[in-house]
Amino acid sequence: MIIVIKRGATAESVQCFTALLEKQGIKVHLSEGASQMVLGLVGDTTGIQEKSLLAHHLVEKVIRVQEPYKRANRLFHPDDTRIAVRGLDGETRYIGAGYLGIIAGPCSVETKEQIISVAQSVKQAGAGFLRGGAFKPRTSPYSFQGLGGEGLDLLIEAKRVTGLPIVTELMAIHQLELFDTVDIIQVGARNMQNFTLLKELGSCRKPILLKRGYAATITELLMAAEYIMAGGNDRIILCERGIRTFESYTRNTLDLSAVPILKKQSHLPVIVDPSHATGLSWMVPAMAKAAIAAGADGLILEVHPNPEEALCDGEQSITPDRFAELMKTLQRYAAVEGRILYEESHETP
Amino acid sequence: MIIVIKRGATAESVQCFTALLEKQGIKVHLSEGASQMVLGLVGDTTGIQEKSLLAHHLVEKVIRVQEPYKRANRLFHPDDTRIAVRGLDGETRYIGAGYLGIIAGPCSVETKEQIISVAQSVKQAGAGFLRGGAFKPRTSPYSFQGLGGEGLDLLIEAKRVTGLPIVTELMAIHQLELFDTVDIIQVGARNMQNFTLLKELGSCRKPILLKRGYAATITELLMAAEYIMAGGNDRIILCERGIRTFESYTRNTLDLSAVPILKKQSHLPVIVDPSHATGLSWMVPAMAKAAIAAGADGLILEVHPNPEEALCDGEQSITPDRFAELMKTLQRYAAVEGRILYEESHETP
Amino acid sequence: MIIVIKRGATAESVQCFTALLEKQGIKVHLSEGASQMVLGLVGDTTGIQEKSLLAHHLVEKVIRVQEPYKRANRLFHPDDTRIAVRGLDGETRYIGAGYLGIIAGPCSVETKEQIISVAQSVKQAGAGFLRGGAFKPRTSPYSFQGLGGEGLDLLIEAKRVTGLPIVTELMAIHQLELFDTVDIIQVGARNMQNFTLLKELGSCRKPILLKRGYAATITELLMAAEYIMAGGNDRIILCERGIRTFESYTRNTLDLSAVPILKKQSHLPVIVDPSHATGLSWMVPAMAKAAIAAGADGLILEVHPNPEEALCDGEQSITPDRFAELMKTLQRYAAVEGRILYEESHETP
Amino acid sequence: MIIVIKRGATAESVQCFTALLEKQGIKVHLSEGASQMVLGLVGDTTGIQEKSLLAHHLVEKVIRVQEPYKRANRLFHPDDTRIAVRGLDGETRYIGAGYLGIIAGPCSVETKEQIISVAQSVKQAGAGFLRGGAFKPRTSPYSFQGLGGEGLDLLIEAKRVTGLPIVTELMAIHQLELFDTVDIIQVGARNMQNFTLLKELGSCRKPILLKRGYAATITELLMAAEYIMAGGNDRIILCERGIRTFESYTRNTLDLSAVPILKKQSHLPVIVDPSHATGLSWMVPAMAKAAIAAGADGLILEVHPNPEEALCDGEQSITPDRFAELMKTLQRYAAVEGRILYEESHETP
Repeated sequence: MIIVIKRGATAESVQCFTALLEKQGIKVHLSEGASQMVLGLVGDTTGIQEKSLLAHHLVEKVIRVQEPYKRANRLFHPDDTRIAVRGLDGETRYIGAGYLGIIAGPCSVETKEQIISVAQSVKQAGAGFLRGGAFKPRTSPYSFQGLGGEGLDLLIEAKRVTGLPIVTELMAIHQLELFDTVDIIQVGARNMQNFTLLKELGSCRKPILLKRGYAATITELLMAAEYIMAGGNDRIILCERGIRTFESYTRNTLDLSAVPILKKQSHLPVIVDPSHATGLSWMVPAMAKAAIAAGADGLILEVHPNPEEALCDGEQSITPDRFAELMKTLQRYAAVEGRILYEESHETP
Repeated sequence: MIIVIKRGATAESVQCFTALLEKQGIKVHLSEGASQMVLGLVGDTTGIQEKSLLAHHLVEKVIRVQEPYKRANRLFHPDDTRIAVRGLDGETRYIGAGYLGIIAGPCSVETKEQIISVAQSVKQAGAGFLRGGAFKPRTSPYSFQGLGGEGLDLLIEAKRVTGLPIVTELMAIHQLELFDTVDIIQVGARNMQNFTLLKELGSCRKPILLKRGYAATITELLMAAEYIMAGGNDRIILCERGIRTFESYTRNTLDLSAVPILKKQSHLPVIVDPSHATGLSWMVPAMAKAAIAAGADGLILEVHPNPEEALCDGEQSITPDRFAELMKTLQRYAAVEGRILYEESHETP
Repeated sequence: MIIVIKRGATAESVQCFTALLEKQGIKVHLSEGASQMVLGLVGDTTGIQEKSLLAHHLVEKVIRVQEPYKRANRLFHPDDTRIAVRGLDGETRYIGAGYLGIIAGPCSVETKEQIISVAQSVKQAGAGFLRGGAFKPRTSPYSFQGLGGEGLDLLIEAKRVTGLPIVTELMAIHQLELFDTVDIIQVGARNMQNFTLLKELGSCRKPILLKRGYAATITELLMAAEYIMAGGNDRIILCERGIRTFESYTRNTLDLSAVPILKKQSHLPVIVDPSHATGLSWMVPAMAKAAIAAGADGLILEVHPNPEEALCDGEQSITPDRFAELMKTLQRYAAVEGRILYEESHETP
Repeated sequence: MIIVIKRGATAESVQCFTALLEKQGIKVHLSEGASQMVLGLVGDTTGIQEKSLLAHHLVEKVIRVQEPYKRANRLFHPDDTRIAVRGLDGETRYIGAGYLGIIAGPCSVETKEQIISVAQSVKQAGAGFLRGGAFKPRTSPYSFQGLGGEGLDLLIEAKRVTGLPIVTELMAIHQLELFDTVDIIQVGARNMQNFTLLKELGSCRKPILLKRGYAATITELLMAAEYIMAGGNDRIILCERGIRTFESYTRNTLDLSAVPILKKQSHLPVIVDPSHATGLSWMVPAMAKAAIAAGADGLILEVHPNPEEALCDGEQSITPDRFAELMKTLQRYAAVEGRILYEESHETP
């Protein structure tokens, strides 16, 4: 961390400020420039906030040279993290380090028939994981809030029938006791900075699918991962799902630049959710292909047997047939740079 | 709600779609336009999601004519809501309906001396409420997370000494048991769509200070209030605190347009937080004055005896002296249109 | 300007880089920190681009300590600039340095009766300037594009009848020859970075009303002013008129924080356009009052005798009666801190 | 266009409003809904502005069913437009309708050696067009503004030597006379809504590369194209180059969703500029691949022999070697869905 001192500061006042910093266990190195003094801070500055430093009357600018995250930082963990999940069918699915993970299923679990039928379709098409919402974050208190525990039971039933590992969203800490047979716990965009929840998940032994908040910077997403990792759980899958901008054609603006950036800054796998980002099912194939080409380690996609009757988010779901077709195309895109879509990897990972 | 049907749709398919809607208890009125059919939906459409309708292949556009919120809607509650809170000193403070409420205090509670000293200063300057953070939402897990329960105790001590009602942030449901002597519970920007928390606060009997998420639309803020109100708690104070934009000079962009809009759409009082919005203490007076002139029902301001040593958010705090000076100016702005700052109203509300 | 050098850089490579910089007339001061070297650049760095420096493989970060604008910078011109314009009625109007300038009139000039009637109304209500669009920037080529030269003639006619100085938008350099009798030339938001146009206006002897582009940062607005000032014309009025954000209730988000920032960074007067920012006439009074309280040096407002029949931007115009009423209220807000609305200042500036 | 009338409006007032609309040559179809009247407007409504209608006191909402653009609209021109440009080497290059066009070269033309060397490299690697800036839009008046006419001469020299068609930016109408031997005229992001310039280009017989403004919606980009097309020039190449958002890691946020949307809404070819969007050369390959996978008809890329010495935008340029390598990878991505990169198509289009 580098601090530029305001012009005209006296040596004494800077000394006094330096002492204040050193009390926090930081070593301070002073360099006197031509017209301005510059302080270099050495040591663990991850707990220091730029804005607190800026409050000091001597401080002109603060520049963080080291990233504020450690465990999520590729600098200290150069190899890609690969998440492995074993299904009830005995097969292990991988996300990261060259393996693409495809998570597919309906927005909401509705009926036993619906979820089992979708699960079978997506497994056959090559998906590695089944998704389905039981607890649903809804903007309106008057909208359908998901089937809750009952929905979770249906999802688990689909897991038993197909062997697919399941992914579903946790909305509050007290629901955790119901998530024993869930394979990957999803933290939704609106909870990305629910720090109490993140801390709790740090002591959980399951992989976490962490969605980027729709107004969160890339650094904030990594800091959210750091919260979980600081608690001891380092099996995090990051997920880009669109940010809020002025453009209103799509629900959100899918920020695919986040993919190479996250992969450069962190060792964690990165997947993309084109369904929620665009909110438009006809755009899902184009953005799914682009995500793979940008380097994503997988996708989370909404698939619904009959989107027109879906209880929620119908517009962003594709049918099982279109999903199967898309998977074939995605496989060819993945192959361009030798990456592996699940279906072909399960024999020999 | 109005649905524009795609050109070329057959009468049968529209009839079938209409039947689907009527199964949900909605009356549908069909008007045949020159080239397109238009459906008018009558009844309670607050639970219907536009995006689900848009999934249907017959639907071209959906227009919501009625707002999706009811209890927060001024249409059904034309008079301004006024929040009254009685302090331990026997005086009642008001926010809304012509009364301006000023909530002041440090970002974080640090020591007994600090919080009591600030409380006394702000009370003398005319503030109606004391704020202070005990549980702090911090971007980094390595930053100071607030004194927690101990901080709450110090805040309560300051309440006893000064008589001022206190306002502090709740980060998770399980903390609620500690909030018995808190007068107004603050929901932070990052929790504005923590729906589980909002529902819980619906059955709480305390006023809620609900901050706008920094990527939340005005409608979403009102829907968050609706979540709490749907549970039976209608004592909500809305708070504009800046939104995320491309401009990086300020931490966020204070959206003062939200003030007249929220007051037109809703009967709830609206306050403004210029400290967090700008992140720069020198800007607080200008934006505080602008907020009052825009019609806000109050302010929440960070005041710290020594901002340079503040453990958090120092840059956005002003000193007690500058606060006292600002209060005098604000009183003159409030007086322009006959509104009442707390200090002069406590004799005769 | 401060450059942080990447860790592990050799002394020779840094020397070579330093030489490159010194060839551009910059003095470089090297400070060796604990783990990283830091270069301090001394001299006129306004022409150096951060992004070019960042291209160099030795460079980790670049921090600009000095602002990139000089003539617009308050640092080199501590006193407020005051723009004075003399009307045909012999009176001089002022904007800046304690004088508030109110510019009012219709979005488009439509007929002789319309523009003269509005001019008379707004003059009587205390406006100092008449605005009216002759050349209109329209999103659609099929929309009414303004009356052009004929509209300008009508505006000049209104100037003759009322004595009010006139303000109108210039869309292209070749129109300049028609602007001889225009008192203040407006550069629209979409032309804020039309650098060819800005350069041309640098050699023009009229005050320029420079609107902030709706995606321009505050620094970019000041750099646009710098373009004009570099050519020798330093009579610039800056205008905040809303920026693009995700919020869709208003057309743009009025960024009132820009007012105190621009006034801190620059000596130029700053006015606000609440009509275009919000796009909603009912919000104009609230935001006009807030702008004055935030410290703006004036306003530009749309006033139309019959907004319902306006050929463009009807929704954002207020009637002459509402304008007159608003002026009285604004005068009281201005008086709070001793600032002067035009009507009372014309006797004794 | 559909207009929802406010509740409680009288039949007479609606009749009067209807008459007003019909005077503008629009046929109005009235449908009386259960609680609200709805007007359907038939005829050419492209010139009608929603905001003008909204000014009327009877109007609750306005919904545009038909897009406001006609010539750019795929509805009236279902087949993809393909732009063909013949080089001095006798070969024709194509953009659109299955042909990918790659435009490569330095940000600024600097020297004869530089531009010819880059031109030869990119041609050999398979680029179809040479780009190079002569007139440069610079944020600061003190930055290098490009070599101007001299730069144009050097670019033309490179065209003669290599046979590659050239693409360069026009900043003002009066420069047009110098652009005779330029093959494709680029309109920069900051000029996307310079309507005077767009109109002028409507009567020009060269293809126009129209860049999306960094705060322009997709509809506004299409309306800008419509301005040029309304003048008779329908050879437009649309270019996505990033939009402004809160994310600051990249210079802009590349909005790849714009690619499938533009291609659905319009028949015009769509290319992507990953260099300017990200501002970071290491990200260019990832985003270039993603753009192709998303369906783009080509790319515009910055290539510079020595990015570290580039006079401008060095950080976003890649070297000729990395460009050649990237081209090979892109070819494999293009082949996935049978699209043609230039180098293989020139024998048999």
